[in-house]
Order: sequence, then C-alpha cells, then structure tokens
Amino acid sequence: MSQPLRLGIAGLGTVGMGVLHILRQHGDMLKQRTGRDIVISAVSARSRNKDRGVSLAGYGWEDDPVALAQRDDVDIFVELMGGSEGPAKEATEAALRAGKQVVTANKALLAIHGQALAELAESKGSAIRYEAAVAGGIPVIKTLVEGLAGNEITRVMGVMNGSCNYILTRMEDAGKSYQDIFAEAEGLGYLEADPQLDVGGIDAAHKLAILSALSFGTRVDFDGIQLEGIEQITIEDIRAAADMGFKIKLLGVAQKTGRGLEQRMQPCLVPETSPLGQLDGGTNMVVLEGHAVGQIVLRGPGAGEGPTASAVMADICDLARGWTGPVFNQPADTLETPTPALSQRPAPYYLRMALVDKPGAMAKIAAVLGEAGVSINRMRQYEHSDVSAPVLIVTHKTNRSDLDRALAAMDGTGVMAGPVVALRIEEV
Amino acid sequence: MSQPLRLGIAGLGTVGMGVLHILRQHGDMLKQRTGRDIVISAVSARSRNKDRGVSLAGYGWEDDPVALAQRDDVDIFVELMGGSEGPAKEATEAALRAGKQVVTANKALLAIHGQALAELAESKGSAIRYEAAVAGGIPVIKTLVEGLAGNEITRVMGVMNGSCNYILTRMEDAGKSYQDIFAEAEGLGYLEADPQLDVGGIDAAHKLAILSALSFGTRVDFDGIQLEGIEQITIEDIRAAADMGFKIKLLGVAQKTGRGLEQRMQPCLVPETSPLGQLDGGTNMVVLEGHAVGQIVLRGPGAGEGPTASAVMADICDLARGWTGPVFNQPADTLETPTPALSQRPAPYYLRMALVDKPGAMAKIAAVLGEAGVSINRMRQYEHSDVSAPVLIVTHKTNRSDLDRALAAMDGTGVMAGPVVALRIEEV
Repeated sequence: MSQPLRLGIAGLGTVGMGVLHILRQHGDMLKQRTGRDIVISAVSARSRNKDRGVSLAGYGWEDDPVALAQRDDVDIFVELMGGSEGPAKEATEAALRAGKQVVTANKALLAIHGQALAELAESKGSAIRYEAAVAGGIPVIKTLVEGLAGNEITRVMGVMNGSCNYILTRMEDAGKSYQDIFAEAEGLGYLEADPQLDVGGIDAAHKLAILSALSFGTRVDFDGIQLEGIEQITIEDIRAAADMGFKIKLLGVAQKTGRGLEQRMQPCLVPETSPLGQLDGGTNMVVLEGHAVGQIVLRGPGAGEGPTASAVMADICDLARGWTGPVFNQPADTLETPTPALSQRPAPYYLRMALVDKPGAMAKIAAVLGEAGVSINRMRQYEHSDVSAPVLIVTHKTNRSDLDRALAAMDGTGVMAGPVVALRIEEV
Repeated sequence: MSQPLRLGIAGLGTVGMGVLHILRQHGDMLKQRTGRDIVISAVSARSRNKDRGVSLAGYGWEDDPVALAQRDDVDIFVELMGGSEGPAKEATEAALRAGKQVVTANKALLAIHGQALAELAESKGSAIRYEAAVAGGIPVIKTLVEGLAGNEITRVMGVMNGSCNYILTRMEDAGKSYQDIFAEAEGLGYLEADPQLDVGGIDAAHKLAILSALSFGTRVDFDGIQLEGIEQITIEDIRAAADMGFKIKLLGVAQKTGRGLEQRMQPCLVPETSPLGQLDGGTNMVVLEGHAVGQIVLRGPGAGEGPTASAVMADICDLARGWTGPVFNQPADTLETPTPALSQRPAPYYLRMALVDKPGAMAKIAAVLGEAGVSINRMRQYEHSDVSAPVLIVTHKTNRSDLDRALAAMDGTGVMAGPVVALRIEEV
C-alpha cells in the first residue's frame, strides 16, 4: 500500500470546509479510487476558534499559511485563501520552494502570476493544479488539457461568471433595471466583496486568461484581454435583443489568429436558441473547439461549496495517483509571449439608438452606415411617444473598424438623440 | 528525454485513420504536451493494399492483430476493429497477457467482457483505456472518473446514440414516419451494418453499462439493463409530445437505489426546454450528477472520424504521461455484482390511446385510472373524423406498478380502440 497523501489546507471558508467535508465523509471511496489514504495534516485560517460545526482537533494548526506550506508533514499545499497578492502568493511560493505540490482555487493568482509560479514549480519538479479556478465544478481544465490533448484548440468561449449571468437573466425575468437587480444580487450575497470583480468582468477575465494559456501555448496574459463589464447593459437592450431573438451574455472568447492572440470578455448577443443563449441564472458554460473533435460544450455550477470543493478534490485525487504534468499544458519555458490582437473577424452587430423624431432621420443613418460599408440585415423602429424614436439595427457581418467609422459619422448627422449602444453578435 | 511511446494500431477504418492523421500532423504538439514522442510501430487491417490516401510504408504490418498485439516494439495496443467477439477480443487479451497497455473504442467488448478484461489487465499491471467507447468525442469517462473523483455519483443520464437522435429529430422536422426516416438514415450511411444495434438501443446500452460500472462501483452489467428501442415511436407520438411541451429521446438512465442498480435505456419524454430536450440531430449529451458538484452536462459529437480519434488520442496521451489506474475506477476485484432493479421511483407518464367514439368512454378510462391510484395531470382529446377518438393523458407521478394495473384494466373496459402507448417522462 502506498504512503498516505498528506494535505495542508490554508483557508477554511466555504470551499475549504467543502473539501474538509468530502475528505471526512468519503475517505473510503477516495482510497478505493486513488489507492491511497488522503489525510489532512494541518490547517490554517484567519480564526482558529470560529465555530465551523466541525472539530479541527485532529489537525495541526498554523496561524501563518507560509509555515503551513513548509511543514514536513505536508505533501500538498491546498491554497483556498484567494487574492492575487499577500498570503496566498507568499504561501504558494513558499510551498513550491519547499518542493511541495500546490492545489489552488485562486484564479487571480494564476492569471496574474501564473508564468512566474509555473517556472518556479517546474524548476522544483513540482506541480500546480487549479481546476477549481475556472468555472467552478465544471472540470474544464481537465477536459481541455487531457480530454482534448490530441486537438489543436481553435477557439474557447464561455460564460464564466455566474453572478453576471444571474443579473442579466434576472433583469429580463423581472423586467427591472441593472441598478435594481445589482442591489438585489448584492443583498443576496451573490457578489464578491468588491463587486467590480464580478460586474466589471475581471473575475471572468482571470478565468479566460488561464484557458487561453492552456489552449494556445502562450504565457498567461490577463492584461491582453479586451475587457468590458455589464454595467452599461440596460433593460431596454435586453428587451430589444430578445425581440430580435437574442440573449445578452457576458461572454469570453479566446482565439489565436495570424495577428496574435485575441482575448475578449464583453457583453455579446448570442442566439436565444443556442446552448449559451439558453443558459439561465448562476450556471456556467464553456465551449471548447478543437480541430479534431469539433465543438464540446460543458455546463455546470460555477461556484458554491460543493461544486468548487469537487474541483479541488479532482486535483488532489490526480496528485494522489501520481499524475503530474506541466502547469500550463506544456513546459513553462516553451510558452510563447502572445501578441494581443483585437478581433479582425467580421461579425454582425446589434445597434440601439434614439433618433430625433423628424423626417429623413432614418435615411441619414442608413446612408452613413452604407458609406462606411456596413450593411443592414434587420431594422426596427418602435412606436414612441416622446421626442426621440428608438431604433434597432442588426447589421450583416462587418469589420469593427468599418463600424467604428460609421458610429463616428453618425455623431455628425445631427439626428442622434443620444449615444449608440453597439454590441457584437457572437457566432456560437 | 523519455523513451518514445510505441503504438500498434489494429483497424484502419474511419477512426484508425483519424488517429493516424493526428499523429502524423500534430506530432510536435503531442510531444510538447506529453513530453514524449508518440510513434506508430506497426499496423494491422483487413486489407493491406487498400488506397487510404496515406502511405503505410513507414510502419510495420501484421495481417493478424494478435501478432500485432504481441510485438516487442509495441507498448500500447490500439484496438479499433470493433465487435465484442473474434479478433478484437482475442487481440486485446493477447496484448494484456503480453503486458501491453490497451486503448480501445470498443463499447461492445467492454460492456460484455469488461470484468474479465479488467481482471486480466490488473493481474498484469496493465491498463485498458476506452474514452472513445462512450459518447464519441465527449471526454465523459475522464470527467466521471477523474473530474468528479471527489463525488459519490448519484445519477447518470444520456442521449448516447446519435443515429437514434437523428431519426427522432428528423421525424419531427420532416413530419414523416419512423419507417421513412429509418430508410433515409440507412441510405445516408448513418446506421450500423446491423441497424438493430442503433434503433434497438443496444449500442447506447453498451455505453450506459460502462458508465454505470464507473459510477457505482459495480461490475459492468449489460444484461441488467431494461432495454427498449425507438422502433415503436410514431410521428403521432412525437407530435402529441410536442403539443404537451416535450421531446421524445432515447434516454439512458442509471442510478443506484436501496433495491439495487437501476439501468434503463428507453424512449422517454423530456421537457423541450431542458438541455436534453434541445439536443437535435446526431449530437450526444451526458448528464452526470454527484453529491458535491450537483449536475454537469456535457454535449458534443458522438461519432465520426475526428471526434472519435480525439478521444482515442486522449487515452494515448494519458498513457504517454504515465497516468494509469484501475480499469473501472476502482480495482476490478472490489467491484460489486449489482442486483438489477426496476425503477421504483414514481414518475409522470405520457399515455396516448384511441377510444371508441361513444358517450361515456372517457369517463370509463378516467375511472379506471383513478381506481388504480393514477392521477391525471393533463388530458387532451383531439378533434377526429373517424370512429375512434385520440386521447392524450399526462399523469401525475405514479408507480409503474399502479400504471400497469391501470393499463391492464383499461383493456377490459370495452372502450379502447387500440393499444395504449405509455412513455415515461423523465425529470431532468
């Protein structure tokens, strides 16, 4: 029988307690599957005496996660504290320097410091595993790196922030404003302490940066992401999109083109009948496309105690089986530094605008679009009672540069009653 | 640098050639990911001289797959011939006896002989990997065994035969009979040489038997599956189900209950708005439920050269990395022999019948259902011109035994103008 695998768990919040519960309640099952006992040597958390409903008496305790990471009786340092800096980073580095393996749920840490950590880990022959960092309970990293190992990855897409998807879905269902539903979500505890991480798209972009590196053999490049949050999405846009057969999603897309690595995290329209369009509430979805497999769609819970702990346990079980590999799918020193590229692929766009209510206004807009080479696929003008007329346009596929030229020219027509909302329609 | 990993590939049909193409065209990528060269030592197929568009000159050749399986220059025997008996079985056994590892896409072989092969493999310290055997390009075995390793699996469901799903979807779209669309699918080459494997549900049941064993720690038990094909599904049922908000799918469900292992492969109704209900054409979908993660849904191509080769390559890459484990998620000698159990879980049912067109007919049926304890949720009688009246009933949740009693009693009422179609409505 193999030696037990000994864990040091730093962070006993929701996820840490979820891991603890699985280890306590399903130890025999885990042993049968991995061939080893998996035991907790010691833990660390902000408060030792908080009532967690479970006694920690059987485990060693460290106030300092760095000390935990260096303990002789710890084989795997399980980092569940979060944050890209501070204790999480220091303790992870300490663990790697001490030759320990690391399992973490920390997307920010990997998205910001992934390359340096990977180099450190690989110089020590250690592994870092982080299934829980992307899309919660969905084993997307495993699917991408291992399940699609025979594929050149051609595109990765995903709705990976459940809070944003909840807000957008709930706005439509309740017919309420972004501000109202944001307040509701915050009241329900659905948002991060800094809600900008959610609604600004930062959390989802951290995840996208990790998937890009794994997919395209590039160094993780969070700063190269074209990032836009959902704060500007109005109930009017959601209704208008629905009227045209679309849903608005905070969608991440990564793709390697001849010009470089395109990484976008922005609100997009997707067909309401597509799998992404049908994704309601806090659920996550990741779409993986490979040259051999075609398209694989994964759907599941993106957060929560059980799902996140499930992903952490998958990593721990893999390491218990002795399965280790490079941190980012190939050795860190072979990863290329990507050239960030804006999308040059033409796409259809959704445009919502208000025109002053006088004869010839619509004609002027149509003319400006035509001159810029932007062709109209569908157009609707809605009945209105005030002085401006709401107009929706779905364009044929167009280059963003042509569209930007048209948007600039619209400003000079004198018929615009406000700014234009322009959202990309993603082909899914 | 590690030694090259040397393959012997038996079977150069669609899947075998797909694997060959990936190895020839993406060798560098595979080496970067796995750290090893993956090379083909030798191949075997029915015809050596068939024009495959690729020269086999660089590879050794064996007429006999058993000889291929035993070659000294083969580390992994890749079995892509198919069939539960004959050369596939003999060569797989020969490979395992010779201490080789085996990668196969052969669902029938695993579903029928899985336990014996697993025992043989584990007695030799060898591995058998078979990602391609279930749901084509979807890495469902990896997700289940590794991605959800920390979960007690509570239910597995899936639409895992693309041909059946194509037929059912196409019947609805074209408004044509089962017989018409069956002939169309056969003409398009969508069906197995023995189409009963597809439409009789056998192929999908092989896959379900494998997933059950992996999920519930039981020996693979194909014979324990309650099996029903799609041959009896009529366009009238598809239309009537749609009218009630449902789709008809050939759905596999496996679940361990207090009474034993429930495994069903049968046409069921699912809500048209559910992920399973929205699955059109040849695509596969598998739903995995675990105690910690909740529900994970995987969707992707269930067959074809690229997708199946992608799954085979995932197994080869795992073995190249040295990642091996028990054949069925825990050592073969610890797998329990399951007790097959019919579902005792109450479910709603869809009933379609024709009643003789005379006063009181409907009342008699309603009375019989009520006496058996079967409660009606929704009922529709359709306009009709002939001597019998079409009636649809959706029941509340009921035990199958109560329903069977009601169905038997209906026969005695004298108001039935034909047999009753009864289909389970699955909660998804």
